[in-house]
Amino acid sequence: MNYRVIFNIVGKVLCVEAVFMLPAFFIALYCGEKAAALSFVVAMMLLILVGLPPALRKPRCRDFFARDGLAAVGFTWIAVSVLGAVPFFISGAIPNFIDCIFETVSGFTTTGASILRDVEVLPRSILYWRSFTHWLGGMGVLVFLLIFNPMTGKDTGEGMHLLRAESPGIVISKLVPRMKDSAGILYLIYIGLTLLQMVMLLCGGMPLFDTVTLTFGTAGTGGFGVLNDSVASYSPYCQWVIAVFLLLFSINFNIYFLLLLRKVRKALCNEELRVFLLIAFVAVAIIAVNTFDRYATVEETLRHSLFQVASIMSTGGFSTVDFDAWPQFSRTILVLLMFGGACTGSTGGGAKIARIVVMVKAARRAVYRAIHPNAVYLIHMDGEVVDDETVNSVGAYMLVYFLILAAATLLVTLDGFSFESNFTAAVSCMNNVGPGLGAVSPTMNYADFSWFSKLVLTFAMLIGRLEIYPVLMLFVPSVWRKISC
Amino acid sequence: MNYRVIFNIVGKVLCVEAVFMLPAFFIALYCGEKAAALSFVVAMMLLILVGLPPALRKPRCRDFFARDGLAAVGFTWIAVSVLGAVPFFISGAIPNFIDCIFETVSGFTTTGASILRDVEVLPRSILYWRSFTHWLGGMGVLVFLLIFNPMTGKDTGEGMHLLRAESPGIVISKLVPRMKDSAGILYLIYIGLTLLQMVMLLCGGMPLFDTVTLTFGTAGTGGFGVLNDSVASYSPYCQWVIAVFLLLFSINFNIYFLLLLRKVRKALCNEELRVFLLIAFVAVAIIAVNTFDRYATVEETLRHSLFQVASIMSTGGFSTVDFDAWPQFSRTILVLLMFGGACTGSTGGGAKIARIVVMVKAARRAVYRAIHPNAVYLIHMDGEVVDDETVNSVGAYMLVYFLILAAATLLVTLDGFSFESNFTAAVSCMNNVGPGLGAVSPTMNYADFSWFSKLVLTFAMLIGRLEIYPVLMLFVPSVWRKISC
Repeated sequence: MNYRVIFNIVGKVLCVEAVFMLPAFFIALYCGEKAAALSFVVAMMLLILVGLPPALRKPRCRDFFARDGLAAVGFTWIAVSVLGAVPFFISGAIPNFIDCIFETVSGFTTTGASILRDVEVLPRSILYWRSFTHWLGGMGVLVFLLIFNPMTGKDTGEGMHLLRAESPGIVISKLVPRMKDSAGILYLIYIGLTLLQMVMLLCGGMPLFDTVTLTFGTAGTGGFGVLNDSVASYSPYCQWVIAVFLLLFSINFNIYFLLLLRKVRKALCNEELRVFLLIAFVAVAIIAVNTFDRYATVEETLRHSLFQVASIMSTGGFSTVDFDAWPQFSRTILVLLMFGGACTGSTGGGAKIARIVVMVKAARRAVYRAIHPNAVYLIHMDGEVVDDETVNSVGAYMLVYFLILAAATLLVTLDGFSFESNFTAAVSCMNNVGPGLGAVSPTMNYADFSWFSKLVLTFAMLIGRLEIYPVLMLFVPSVWRKISC
Repeated sequence: MNYRVIFNIVGKVLCVEAVFMLPAFFIALYCGEKAAALSFVVAMMLLILVGLPPALRKPRCRDFFARDGLAAVGFTWIAVSVLGAVPFFISGAIPNFIDCIFETVSGFTTTGASILRDVEVLPRSILYWRSFTHWLGGMGVLVFLLIFNPMTGKDTGEGMHLLRAESPGIVISKLVPRMKDSAGILYLIYIGLTLLQMVMLLCGGMPLFDTVTLTFGTAGTGGFGVLNDSVASYSPYCQWVIAVFLLLFSINFNIYFLLLLRKVRKALCNEELRVFLLIAFVAVAIIAVNTFDRYATVEETLRHSLFQVASIMSTGGFSTVDFDAWPQFSRTILVLLMFGGACTGSTGGGAKIARIVVMVKAARRAVYRAIHPNAVYLIHMDGEVVDDETVNSVGAYMLVYFLILAAATLLVTLDGFSFESNFTAAVSCMNNVGPGLGAVSPTMNYADFSWFSKLVLTFAMLIGRLEIYPVLMLFVPSVWRKISC
């Protein structure tokens, strides 16, 4: 591992985080929240203190391999979360530091699982920071760095390795030749959509503070709200807007880039997009029929069905109703949707629809091969052949995924909650959704879990957001060997 | 598909089934169970009527491919189950025919899931037949045919394709050059172990009828008992004996063959066996600690822990206590053990330990490859390299497996039971275990499920026992094309 370069990157990201904490600090000043303001000052000082020295120290040896990219991402996310948790702790908003870490990791990984029983009593600046972590984590803190960092402008392997390691999904392609420009375009689209949603929510009469924080939560597909009932008490119009934007943020951002280039046909032919929309449509239809007798009007039924499906598929995790009270069939559909998650290259989590599509095609091939052992059977995606290596790596990924899920479920079980609660808590955290069923349903929270379970779930959230390897590799001893140029 | 050969095979197996029904018929006569005796006569007549004509008709074209082997196995198991259900129906023991099918498939697939609320009121002959289906299904009805069927003595591809399609696990190797002899040796070991268990149970003072039926259930790792509390009311000695034999029947029978040849070293070096025993040991230890305060003595704690672990790992499904009342941690461990199941080449079900071992090694490789993208990493098993094709086919198998499990869970959910009940019912049936948690715990049964769910679970049991492809391929249209020689 090239520690110098890695620490250099981590340091830079911490400095960026300090800058990003400024708006929350100003909000604290504006609202006269003294304890919060102080906590942000302390946190920013800590960030600069820890981040600046390695950020300024120019590494001599610039060798940078895939493993360094993974390690940099793993370290960065851990450092960003631990230091990002400081304001919660010092302001006294969350008294227990493990709870602070849980909440911050839940924010950055855009999970939205909370240990807070009552968010409405929190200072506004703290609520703002809490939601803003979603927005930062959604597109990736390192991707942001790539835009401004001169060293990655040279397009050494560095930028690509970092982007690959941090971005979710199967294949990450550069939009334009220069890495820096690709990252910039992604962030511009992200900012554009975010602003659009804010305008639409403001038009619906939502207060400015709620608009900003909820839009951060939607854009990052996070799920932290500022009211205890998530978004249940906003107007139907606002709920529709949020539902639609949750879906918009779950789509591969490359598609928006293609639309901007007026390559409409190519954009709409995207197989992952089509499957994603098909699943959403079928799920909404089934749930609407299944819950029809619970709501007064067709609009209400459709709205709640769509909202919950969009919320779970995007892995946002907002809710307009307590879906834990829905019939068993609808509840189970929601749990299954958690696994699939959103599309590659979006801000959403989960295993990604593209992986599910490849899995289902590989399953069909397995049946076909059992019947015709010697026949050749190619797997296609978007009209192109998916090579065996990709298929196998997707299979291996899902394997590791299920093993970790089983382990997480088992460890959480020690707290003695119901099987349903433990299983859906693990599934929900690992797929960065937020709520689950039973003890972690939309009306409940993660406060009652033991510190051990909270650490396990924190780990699961990181594993899910960073797609396993950047976190898991930190447990491989050989990775820690220092390289000499 | 070569229909003639396939029907010929199915016909022969049905005739064999008729012969195997004779003991039950004699028991009915001996016990004076008139309705039962009559029902066996009708069933045997039906079996001969349906089975004899195709069995006698010699197929001209003997081309036989892998798909024909799969189809023959699929058809045979469906036919054997449907006609094997006749005695339950006609004797009036089970009034609903779908329930009869469920019970018979549960018997032949050695699942042991029951829709009967009270087994103690059933005629003895019916109970005997119910348990005997376990013994037949354990080693495989077609494997039995291979011993006596002259056509497969010639060692065309036929015998190998059939054995491959019916036997569980990754790699099926012939013990000796001639297929017929291999099948014969397997059955001899099977019969030997069965007799040994009977003697040991009789020595413990268990009544003859209970001894015979419970041994059938143990040998096939089925789980049907003749008392409503499974084996809870037998003596501790008998419970120890059954627990140990459950483990013995979960081990690859090749190992006994090696032991008979005095190749002790080779037998004990088997990696799957070691992992199987290690998992069992760890699970027993954890559960014993976790349930220690519930039982009076160390012996009792160990006995119940070992029995339940052996019962679940072997996919037998007997129980000495209601493990549904155990702490959440122990319950979840049992659910996880269901997935692994027993060893390749045993009578047990589940995904098989060998597959789990390959999966875990593939997972390790995936992490390694993420760190060192260009390095070569070979997967070994028993000291030999496992080729990529095997690793990928295991991955594909698990993929199909999880997809079917998800679908089965969702469909069963329509009945409105708890998530835990639905999920563990699907897991338990698909892995041929029997009991699950909640509504399908050891003290409960599958009676309250709707006919639709019962069909889904019946399907899951067949899928699990035949390892997916023989059942799934029947849904591929191209398979149904008739071939001309």
